[in-house]
Amino acid sequence: MTVDGRHGEVVDVRWHAHAVSREERERAAGHKGCVLWFTGLSGCGKSTLANAVDHRLHARGVRSFVLDGDNVRLGLNAAPGLLRERHGEEFASRFGLGFAAQDREENIRRIGAVAELFVQAGLVALTAFISPYRRDREAVRRMLAPGDFVEVFVKAPLEVCEGRDPKGLYKRARAGEIKGFTGIDDPYEEPLAPELVVDSAARPPEELAAEVLAWLERAGKIPRSERP
Amino acid sequence: MTVDGRHGEVVDVRWHAHAVSREERERAAGHKGCVLWFTGLSGCGKSTLANAVDHRLHARGVRSFVLDGDNVRLGLNAAPGLLRERHGEEFASRFGLGFAAQDREENIRRIGAVAELFVQAGLVALTAFISPYRRDREAVRRMLAPGDFVEVFVKAPLEVCEGRDPKGLYKRARAGEIKGFTGIDDPYEEPLAPELVVDSAARPPEELAAEVLAWLERAGKIPRSERP
Repeated sequence: MTVDGRHGEVVDVRWHAHAVSREERERAAGHKGCVLWFTGLSGCGKSTLANAVDHRLHARGVRSFVLDGDNVRLGLNAAPGLLRERHGEEFASRFGLGFAAQDREENIRRIGAVAELFVQAGLVALTAFISPYRRDREAVRRMLAPGDFVEVFVKAPLEVCEGRDPKGLYKRARAGEIKGFTGIDDPYEEPLAPELVVDSAARPPEELAAEVLAWLERAGKIPRSERP
Repeated sequence: MTVDGRHGEVVDVRWHAHAVSREERERAAGHKGCVLWFTGLSGCGKSTLANAVDHRLHARGVRSFVLDGDNVRLGLNAAPGLLRERHGEEFASRFGLGFAAQDREENIRRIGAVAELFVQAGLVALTAFISPYRRDREAVRRMLAPGDFVEVFVKAPLEVCEGRDPKGLYKRARAGEIKGFTGIDDPYEEPLAPELVVDSAARPPEELAAEVLAWLERAGKIPRSERP
């Protein structure tokens, strides 16, 4: 379509309207995009492992980014209390996210949708959330193209996670101060067919990170390391 | 903290827990991250321009990504009707987004939050939404660090935009089929102090894209082009 501009010129509004494709972005990056979805109990080491993998990918020139509670719970998925001042009470209670079942479902849905945008941008997105319900994780898997969702089960016995208790949350849950805490009075549903299971009780994060990188290489997501 | 692993090993869960910093990601990318927030009436050419800028950035090796209705309205900011089947009626009506004032506010808030994540990942995020209310745009500006929010006003008279009417929306709004349409029966609040104003009625997108790139160079967000 052409239209007359303000000063009489003919302006073609169709010019280069098509988007840069995902394939073009991946070619420029030199690797594929995908989501590494780390799931497991609180204290199992999801965040530590995601960041360790991110470090290694970054060092190898892979475009990557970690989505976790630290950068999502203050902005995108903010609690009602964080939205109240700027947006008012009604808005905050409608869109703010707490820890009720529906809120958790929406929390995971938004994270999945954002992870998909990162994949479209050609990045390896790493997410580190307990994401205890199989249904919610499967919804994200279905939202993405086949092969884009890589479920990594960070496995550790409850007693190990509770023994670590890095944020003191298990202690508070046992004391009844936190209700519906995963592993205590709310279930963690183990993945039935994750792409990868890593044992964080038996091996240090550095070794687990190497396992994840090796998986990405085997799957053709990133180029093989030049080191032996 | 060290804990005994399942097989008796000592596992240091603190290993490399720190994240790759934004500065490290920017250094690897060879440019700064920022949000180019294109705002203007429906049909003013925001999306065309954002994609044209994205093409040029991509061609110069800059990591960039366009957020627009096409990739946001099906996932992150889906309408209730798109959420109903998978998540149920109650969930869909609480979290799905329509076009009422509060829904528009949340639409822009989520887009701003996601754009910020892309900036943290070291990318130039380009957003192409009417975003008619000054208050909502200013909320995104305040959410971001100083200098990260680059407001680009894509200016064109209503009669030019309505004359283009690429999606037939003005026609439907004039016929009363769409209520609260920006420019017809809902206001567009022009930016008071945008970083950049481009005149899409007078000049073709290719020239406007060059203006935006020149701005990014002058602001030190991307390296200067080697071409004269």
